Amino acid sequence: YKTLREWVAVESDSSNVLKRPDLHRMMEMAAQKLRLMGGTVELVDIGEQELPDGQTLALPKVVTAQFGNDSSKHTVCVYGHVDVQPAKLEDGWATDPYNLTDINGNLYGRGASDNKAPVLAWIHAVEAYQALNMLPVNVKFVIEGMEETGSNGLDAMILAQRDTFFSDVDYIIISDCSWLSRRPALTYGTRGNCYFFAEVEGPKQDLHSGVYGGTVIEPMTDLIGILDTLISPSGKILIPGIREAVAPLSDEEWKMYQDIQFDIDSYKNKIGVSQLMYNNKVDLLAHMWRYPTVSIHGIEGAFSDPGTKTVIPAKVTAKFSIRQVPNMDPAMVKKQVTDYLHSVFAKRKSPNTLKVTMVIGAKPWLADTQHPLYEAGKAAVKRVFGMDPDLIREGGTIPIARTFQDVIEKSIIMMPIGGFDDGLHSQNEKMSRYNYIEGTKLFIAYLNEVSLIKKTTV
Amino acid sequence: YKTLREWVAVESDSSNVLKRPDLHRMMEMAAQKLRLMGGTVELVDIGEQELPDGQTLALPKVVTAQFGNDSSKHTVCVYGHVDVQPAKLEDGWATDPYNLTDINGNLYGRGASDNKAPVLAWIHAVEAYQALNMLPVNVKFVIEGMEETGSNGLDAMILAQRDTFFSDVDYIIISDCSWLSRRPALTYGTRGNCYFFAEVEGPKQDLHSGVYGGTVIEPMTDLIGILDTLISPSGKILIPGIREAVAPLSDEEWKMYQDIQFDIDSYKNKIGVSQLMYNNKVDLLAHMWRYPTVSIHGIEGAFSDPGTKTVIPAKVTAKFSIRQVPNMDPAMVKKQVTDYLHSVFAKRKSPNTLKVTMVIGAKPWLADTQHPLYEAGKAAVKRVFGMDPDLIREGGTIPIARTFQDVIEKSIIMMPIGGFDDGLHSQNEKMSRYNYIEGTKLFIAYLNEVSLIKKTTV
Repeated sequence: YKTLREWVAVESDSSNVLKRPDLHRMMEMAAQKLRLMGGTVELVDIGEQELPDGQTLALPKVVTAQFGNDSSKHTVCVYGHVDVQPAKLEDGWATDPYNLTDINGNLYGRGASDNKAPVLAWIHAVEAYQALNMLPVNVKFVIEGMEETGSNGLDAMILAQRDTFFSDVDYIIISDCSWLSRRPALTYGTRGNCYFFAEVEGPKQDLHSGVYGGTVIEPMTDLIGILDTLISPSGKILIPGIREAVAPLSDEEWKMYQDIQFDIDSYKNKIGVSQLMYNNKVDLLAHMWRYPTVSIHGIEGAFSDPGTKTVIPAKVTAKFSIRQVPNMDPAMVKKQVTDYLHSVFAKRKSPNTLKVTMVIGAKPWLADTQHPLYEAGKAAVKRVFGMDPDLIREGGTIPIARTFQDVIEKSIIMMPIGGFDDGLHSQNEKMSRYNYIEGTKLFIAYLNEVSLIKKTTV
Repeated sequence: YKTLREWVAVESDSSNVLKRPDLHRMMEMAAQKLRLMGGTVELVDIGEQELPDGQTLALPKVVTAQFGNDSSKHTVCVYGHVDVQPAKLEDGWATDPYNLTDINGNLYGRGASDNKAPVLAWIHAVEAYQALNMLPVNVKFVIEGMEETGSNGLDAMILAQRDTFFSDVDYIIISDCSWLSRRPALTYGTRGNCYFFAEVEGPKQDLHSGVYGGTVIEPMTDLIGILDTLISPSGKILIPGIREAVAPLSDEEWKMYQDIQFDIDSYKNKIGVSQLMYNNKVDLLAHMWRYPTVSIHGIEGAFSDPGTKTVIPAKVTAKFSIRQVPNMDPAMVKKQVTDYLHSVFAKRKSPNTLKVTMVIGAKPWLADTQHPLYEAGKAAVKRVFGMDPDLIREGGTIPIARTFQDVIEKSIIMMPIGGFDDGLHSQNEKMSRYNYIEGTKLFIAYLNEVSLIKKTTV
């Protein structure tokens, strides 16, 4: 686990502009690892990002690599990312999030499961075949560093290299997701995500709540007021047009969800709640995978430290996101949310100003589970784990799946190796040694199964 | 300003337990300053405070000092505090908040106006009389370090020393407030404050909003929902019983407010808003001084950093406070708020848990403006500034005024020297050199005026 430990030690948080040097270093480390294996490696410059204040910042380069170029073989392209979500010890981690710690067979650290260990498992799979000098397919890698904030710049890079790097790619493989239970799974769909900032600005600076309270229309009160109109206590999205756009649940889907292994009690237990939004399996799976939802993540600019502060914050910015499913369209959602919040805000007759921005707009993705790529996946799971995989969807977002589908027009499979309890994006994220090792074996078996797909079925 | 610079340099933030060593050092510095002037100084141990997690922490000692003990003279007791509100450069300060910076005659720094410079102005006033060897009254000091978080431990100390240190005190003087305009002012009332934590707890740890969103009843949604029921867009407090307890505005008060110098446009301009909650002077002054208000300060535990994070926070704690006026009672308010929030929360039928705690409960205070102490104040203002003072109230809270009134049963005057635009509790707090120097002269003149009060009128 030496390489994984080195990778986790890098605080490659793509959402924090101050950590950008660490992120650049992380990309260089990934490239160097692939170079030492003898791959044809490039660090692709994808330009700059514009920050909300108008400044620009260099994006982390994208790592591409190629192993083998035998045109008689299939070429798979493994996508992964090595950036991570924010994590601080004081958020409630039991161990330093950037010091990989092995406790009872689990490897704890930010990015362990999302997505550094899966990337390394693919690398180890290639190394295993290299040792035997018998790689059954050509393997390419695309490793990015902006996944956690919306894969800024990657779409353009894929488009630009569609007829070069990607021209001979037959299949795309993504392992940036998790199993649903202890049973291995193949993933055939993901939700997209539209992430919004709603900023309410009033006084020119923070005010003493004793001295000014009662005379000022407080931005925080306005913001709370409009946030409270997004979703009902029973989980109903109140923004007009959102629910109307969602494809109805088909009888086939209902039947399929019924058959999936999913234990409500252990799910409740894992989360630590006494009651969920729905109390039957089908409703839960459907609302996890194929219905939209609103989450309010927090408020920037208000008082968020421990203790007390008697302040009227002058400018407060709520962060919330809406998960996207077929047939929602992010451009439409942006308009629906913006119009709705402005209309709700206007009713308050507040002199403060509201600014709504959509900072991430990622589409959902859906694949055909009868495709040979999935049949090969089922065979590989059967070989390594001795059982059939669950066919599942992912509530989270892998925006790039949609881009690969639209731009490269090649088939995609998502093959998770992370456990259902890995704690992605939360405290004490981990990857178990079992999943890491068996996952590497699965990837080895899968490359062999893919090599057996008839060339014509692409 | 050397001493003021040294005092401001100490981050004596009483709300941050990690800054407690700085706060202890600040109290020692104040004591040492008074010792060097020849005062009889004590550092009074006032015990420990209990933290929300059950741990205990030593409170900053209270500094008492005495100059002169001639029983033929009046004895005044000056109260002040040397703790401060939190401040960070990144909150939007133009200068380091802990490095006193002189720009165009203004001294910028956290605590400059609230309350370190006023305390030092009193000290300089005593030094001026000491230089002439003619202190006209005995002067005592009580300087505490917990004012910004509710003067924890001070009430008990005053009660304990009622018949010793405070037994010969005739008048209490407090300068922990500000003028209302460019005209000097005497303050005859303050609002109290009840500060609440409302904590909603759900999952046992933060969750990925993509993976879990839609299945979990999110604590943040619940919290936003109950916060939105505290106050209406037009500033009406919605908690039953609060408005009913407030003393009605008398015709006399209405007349008095009409006569006060208060320019609505310059007030709006100072705050930087186009519209206030009310558009006439009397309503504004009344809602600043003698009506309650609710301010929502922020949320702890949610995502509050720049950037994006797709998290469902597991435990979120809102901080809000309600300003107290006659005839509200903090114990009653605590019950009203707690009952109301629990009833609102119950209607949501959420499996999450709500905990409401009142962490500060400070009563309002009101004085008689015809008392000789105020007549002396008017004379001193007339002598130094050549005009009559405005008689004003303070929207903020100086809880100790109420304690002095209830326990020592001596008359109290509040004599501000801070400017109306000093930015207490907000970014770029300052004390102007003019107010600091003329304020010191005012205190010198006032001590003389007090010495002329007939002994029998106490």
